[in-house]
Amino acid sequence: MSLPQIDHTHKPSATSWVASANGHSDFPVQNLPFGVFSRAGGARQLGVAIGDSILDLAGAARARLLPGVNASQLTGSSLNTLMAAPPSQRLALRHAVFDVLTNDQHRAHATPHLMPAEACDLHLPAAIGDYTDFYVGIHHARNVGAQFRPDNPLLPNYKYVPIGYHGRASSIRPSGVPLVRPKGQRKAPDGDTPIVGPSTRLDYEVELGIWIGQGNALGEPIPIADAGRHITGFCLLNDWSARDFQAWEYQPLGPFLAKNFQSTISPWIITAEALAPFRIAQPARPAGDPAPLPYLFDLADQAGGALAITLSARISTAKMREAGQPPHRLSGGPASNMYWTPAQIVTHHASNGCNLNPGDLLGTGTISAPTADGYGSLLEISNGGKTPITLPSGEARTFLEDGDEILLTATAQAEGFVSIGFGECRAIVLPAI
Amino acid sequence: MSLPQIDHTHKPSATSWVASANGHSDFPVQNLPFGVFSRAGGARQLGVAIGDSILDLAGAARARLLPGVNASQLTGSSLNTLMAAPPSQRLALRHAVFDVLTNDQHRAHATPHLMPAEACDLHLPAAIGDYTDFYVGIHHARNVGAQFRPDNPLLPNYKYVPIGYHGRASSIRPSGVPLVRPKGQRKAPDGDTPIVGPSTRLDYEVELGIWIGQGNALGEPIPIADAGRHITGFCLLNDWSARDFQAWEYQPLGPFLAKNFQSTISPWIITAEALAPFRIAQPARPAGDPAPLPYLFDLADQAGGALAITLSARISTAKMREAGQPPHRLSGGPASNMYWTPAQIVTHHASNGCNLNPGDLLGTGTISAPTADGYGSLLEISNGGKTPITLPSGEARTFLEDGDEILLTATAQAEGFVSIGFGECRAIVLPAI
Repeated sequence: MSLPQIDHTHKPSATSWVASANGHSDFPVQNLPFGVFSRAGGARQLGVAIGDSILDLAGAARARLLPGVNASQLTGSSLNTLMAAPPSQRLALRHAVFDVLTNDQHRAHATPHLMPAEACDLHLPAAIGDYTDFYVGIHHARNVGAQFRPDNPLLPNYKYVPIGYHGRASSIRPSGVPLVRPKGQRKAPDGDTPIVGPSTRLDYEVELGIWIGQGNALGEPIPIADAGRHITGFCLLNDWSARDFQAWEYQPLGPFLAKNFQSTISPWIITAEALAPFRIAQPARPAGDPAPLPYLFDLADQAGGALAITLSARISTAKMREAGQPPHRLSGGPASNMYWTPAQIVTHHASNGCNLNPGDLLGTGTISAPTADGYGSLLEISNGGKTPITLPSGEARTFLEDGDEILLTATAQAEGFVSIGFGECRAIVLPAI
Repeated sequence: MSLPQIDHTHKPSATSWVASANGHSDFPVQNLPFGVFSRAGGARQLGVAIGDSILDLAGAARARLLPGVNASQLTGSSLNTLMAAPPSQRLALRHAVFDVLTNDQHRAHATPHLMPAEACDLHLPAAIGDYTDFYVGIHHARNVGAQFRPDNPLLPNYKYVPIGYHGRASSIRPSGVPLVRPKGQRKAPDGDTPIVGPSTRLDYEVELGIWIGQGNALGEPIPIADAGRHITGFCLLNDWSARDFQAWEYQPLGPFLAKNFQSTISPWIITAEALAPFRIAQPARPAGDPAPLPYLFDLADQAGGALAITLSARISTAKMREAGQPPHRLSGGPASNMYWTPAQIVTHHASNGCNLNPGDLLGTGTISAPTADGYGSLLEISNGGKTPITLPSGEARTFLEDGDEILLTATAQAEGFVSIGFGECRAIVLPAI
C-alpha cells in the first residue's frame, strides 16, 4: 500500500516564525491541517492552521508565496477541488506552506495573510456528498452487544465484515454549532405503545472521521493496495445518538432518526501526510480470530495502516462552568482499538463497486478501550443507564442533560516526533424546541 | 394539508399541437414532467416531456414564450434551483408551458425548442444531496419478515414508525445505465466462513421515489399539514438488492453493500401538480391497527394523501430479446399498498429536526400487493429462491441472470381525467467485472 512518507516537514527541529505554533499547540508546523474559515461574516476561504493563527491560502497564493502550487484549487469556498486532485498536489501545497511558515524571510510577506483564529469562524471543510458510519471499534461493539445479547455480544459477521451503514450528510455541523435535543418516538420496555417527546437518553460517541480524497468510478472497486491514495485525512466525529429512539426504531433496517438529527466534526482536516510519522502496525488479532479475507489484506497496511492517535472525551455542565470547574474527562484511549484499518474500511466500502467521491466522510464508529476508563459513549459508561456517574460538581449523569457540553480532542504521538493535535470537536446541548 | 389543486391544466379535453402527446402517451399535456436532457454529447439542459418530444425550457424562455416565469431557474444543468423555489413558481411554470403546448399560435415559435426525445440523453433531474429509503410497503415487509420470522413477520414498531434508513446518493443512476453485477461477501447457511464473489441472488425492487422540493432548517420539524409543499414530485425507483450480501451483512446496522452498488430511477419528475387529480384517500387501517400518532395524522392527508398509481415490473432476458418476445410481466399493483402516505414519510423524516434539502430523494420501499401477482421483488415471487418462475422463453428464474433487463413503469389513472405515465425505469444486468 502506498502511504505518505516521512520527509523534511516532520523534522522535530523545525519551528515556525509564528511563535504560538512552537511548544504545546495542536497545530505546530509539522501539522498544517486544511480547513475553511471566514472573518466577520465574510466569504468562506481556504486556510491552514498554524499555532493560534490561520494562513489564508488564496491570499498567500496571490502574494506569490506558494510557487509550484495550483492556485485555482485554493480560491473556492470548500476543499473539494483540492481533495479531488492527486495526493502529490496536496503534498506540494504542504511543502510550500511549510516553507512559508518556517522560513523567516517570508514573514513580512506572509503576515498580512495570517489571521488570528479566535477572530475567525470555522466551517465544514468540504461539501459532504455521502456520509457513512462504520462500527469498527470492537470493544464498543462488544459492550453494546452485551447489553442485548449477554452470551453472544458480537454477531457472526463482525470479524469478517467491516460493518457500516449510511448516515445523513445534510446534518453534519462543525464544532461549536449547538445541538438541539431531538424529539421522537420511544417505547418503554413495559409500555404498550410508544410516546413522542424529547429524547431522555441523549448520548455522545467518540469517533474518527476519514475524509475521502480522489474517488473511484461506479463499478470499480478500490484494491486495498490503492486505498491510501483515496484518503485525504482525518477529523474527530461526535455521532450524537438518542438511545431511546434507537432502541425502538432500529429493527430491521438500522439507526435512522436516532442519529440523523446532527453529527459534529472537528473542522480541520489532519492530512494523511501530517500523520505519516504516526503510522503503526495494526494490532495482531486475538488467537482464534479469522484472518482478514484476501481483498481486505495487505502486508503494508497490516505493518503501518493503524494510527498512534489518542482520543479524549470531556464533559462540561452548566453548573461546572458556573463554578469555574474545567471540563471533566469522561473517557479516552488509543485509536488502535479499531478492529479494521482506514484502508480496510475504504476498500470494503468500494468492494461492490460503490463509488466514493472527494469530500465523502466515513466515520469509524465509536472507539472504546477495553476497560471502563476508555468507553466512548455514556451508553457504555453508565451500563445502559443503570449506573450513573458523579461529576466534580456533584451532579449525576447517565445520559446528557440540557446545557451539557461534550468536547472531543485527539493527539497523534510518536517517539522522536513533534505531537500534533486535531483541534476541538465541541457542542452544547440545547433544550428541545 | 395544502395539496395542489385541480385546475385548467387537468382538463381532459385539452390537447397539444405536439400530436404524439394526444392519445396513449405517458406524457400528455396534462402531465408536463420536468427533467434534464442533453443532445449529442452537449451540455445538460432543463426540459419538459411532451409526447415523444422534449421542450427546452431555457430556449423557450429566451424566445419569450414563458411570461411570468423566473428564467434564471431554467438555465442550470439540474432542477435543484427550481425545486428550492416556492411551489407557486413551479405551478406558474407549469401553467406557462401548458399554454405554449396547447395553444396553436405558439407552435411556430416553440417548434425550434422542441427536441425529439429519441435523440436526447436523459440524466438525473437533480443533484441528490441525501437519499433515504423507507419500508412502507406493508405486504412486502410482511412477506420478507415471514421468511425470517414465520410467526411474527411484522416487528412491533412497524405500525407506529415509518421505518426508513439512509441509502447511497452517489450511485443513483437514471434509466438506461447498465448495472454491473456486484461482488461481495456471502455466507451459506451451512458454511463455516464467508466467500467473496459475484452476487448469486441479485434482485430488483419496485418503489416510488419522492423528490423533496423546499427544505427545512436543521432543528425545525415539518408539521404534517405543511408536508405537501416540500414534495416536488415523484419518480420510479428500482432498489437493486444483492440478497446474499444482505443476509450476511445486515445485522445489526441494516443494509449497506447489498444496496449501494446502484439504484435506478426514471428520469422525469412527475410533479405533485400533475398528480392532483389522482389523489385518493389513504386506505383505512385494518381493525386492530393503531391510529397514526398525532404528529403523523392529518385529516386532509388521510382524505387525499394517497395516490392512484399502478406500478408494473417486467423482465426481458437475452433469449427473449433474441426470440423477439416482448418483456414479461413479473408483477404489478397499486401504490395504495403503502401503509404510510408521502406526507407521513416526509414529516417523520424531519420530526427529529433532520434537515431535508431540495433535490433529496426518498424511496417508499418495495410496494407489493397482498397477492402473488403483485409482489415487488423476486425474493417474494420466488419465495426466497425456493420456487423458480418460468418465463415465456422457457427459462427459469429465481433471481436475476446476466443479460436480464428489468423495466418498471407506472400510470396514474382517475375517472374523468387523462391518464399520465412515469416513463421508463430500466436497466440491464451486466456480468461482474
